[in-house]
Amino acid sequence: MAQNIYDDPQFFAAYSQFRRSLQGLDGAAEWPALRAMLPPMRGLRVADLGCGFGWFSRWAREAGAASVLGIDVSEKMLARARAETSDDAVCYERGDLDALGLPEAAFDLVHSALALHYAEDLGRLFETVHRAIVPGGALVFSIEHPIYMAPSDPHWITLEDGRKIWPLDDYSREGRRTTDWLAKGVVKYHRTLGTTLNLMIRAGLKVAHVEEWAPSREQIAATPEAAEALDRPIFLLVAASR
Amino acid sequence: MAQNIYDDPQFFAAYSQFRRSLQGLDGAAEWPALRAMLPPMRGLRVADLGCGFGWFSRWAREAGAASVLGIDVSEKMLARARAETSDDAVCYERGDLDALGLPEAAFDLVHSALALHYAEDLGRLFETVHRAIVPGGALVFSIEHPIYMAPSDPHWITLEDGRKIWPLDDYSREGRRTTDWLAKGVVKYHRTLGTTLNLMIRAGLKVAHVEEWAPSREQIAATPEAAEALDRPIFLLVAASR
Repeated sequence: MAQNIYDDPQFFAAYSQFRRSLQGLDGAAEWPALRAMLPPMRGLRVADLGCGFGWFSRWAREAGAASVLGIDVSEKMLARARAETSDDAVCYERGDLDALGLPEAAFDLVHSALALHYAEDLGRLFETVHRAIVPGGALVFSIEHPIYMAPSDPHWITLEDGRKIWPLDDYSREGRRTTDWLAKGVVKYHRTLGTTLNLMIRAGLKVAHVEEWAPSREQIAATPEAAEALDRPIFLLVAASR
Repeated sequence: MAQNIYDDPQFFAAYSQFRRSLQGLDGAAEWPALRAMLPPMRGLRVADLGCGFGWFSRWAREAGAASVLGIDVSEKMLARARAETSDDAVCYERGDLDALGLPEAAFDLVHSALALHYAEDLGRLFETVHRAIVPGGALVFSIEHPIYMAPSDPHWITLEDGRKIWPLDDYSREGRRTTDWLAKGVVKYHRTLGTTLNLMIRAGLKVAHVEEWAPSREQIAATPEAAEALDRPIFLLVAASR
């Protein structure tokens, strides 16, 4: 079962202050890159795994989607998503990524933003997604990059010669990673990039695009500290088709 | 044009003393993993890009391949490959990966071991490979892992607390990397894993398997220092189909 850290009061309070929580998709630096990987939304039946406050679900409808099913494990996030959405074609349901069931061949697009690293059994989840997508349909997701998740102590180090480096170790040691991020004991699952792709392929999905997100020149000009993602990626964006 | 460092006398002399040069495929730790990604060889028409001393070309024939075309930029390597091969169905030709031409739909398998990081224009090369493979045919290759190639100073660091870490930086800064490895000024081209896969996909190839090679328990038991690849991968192995 995936941990439901978002319902932890301290975590929720801190997360709610994030730029991406306050400003929605435009507060997420990787959103323009992810958006460019999405199919034209008009008429699509969409599922959003880890829908959070519902920003993507509402955007998808504005962009022309026929319907959106948002799924999240956090009651608090779902409550706010429901409160901020007045649209009969958007529906929110509680669901745990490690126990998720989805109707078969019911969606043209499955989207997920920064949620799949909470799933312990990603192979099972991809199989569920594969069955839920119609032939020709798409899966587009972002996940924490394995280079970002892997290290035993994932914090920048400045060396004596002034170089700022990311202390990579444990890259091929997959499994549970517990970090203190917004709250103590946040549990995520590290998998190599190869493992994530192979689980998708084994589930019957075709890899269409793999983007190890890096900030654009304009983003760095606007937010100079964003440049550190050029040294080690934070987000992995993947598009696949059935 | 790809650099022809293998014909540098100092480089060639040092490379010739490597375990993989002396013992062939069995001297390469990643070979069992790569072999497992190959299709059954019986009857296949094979091209080997960066064939070196011809170890793979001869193995492919022993494993049942109908014919093998080995291509390398190094005259010295080709000379030894020719001297050590007595098989009319194996042919060696000189070729630069950045200017390579291959006959269309002439191969069932294109293989390449640790050569593609010397190619400056990998997109062009994948397009050439795509045209050269028959529908249903395969491309299976190994390449230096981008985590291994990326850093501005790619050497392990031992921190004050005793942790040995790989000082990652510059991961998303693609392009030329000049290292002093066996000889001064060896030129390779760093691309993110995503870029390598996207160039393949854009050329029309389907990603079948992505393996960020790590040593097996048995390999670590036999060669304890091999364990460092668990902390940061050295080799990336990829299988694709047309």
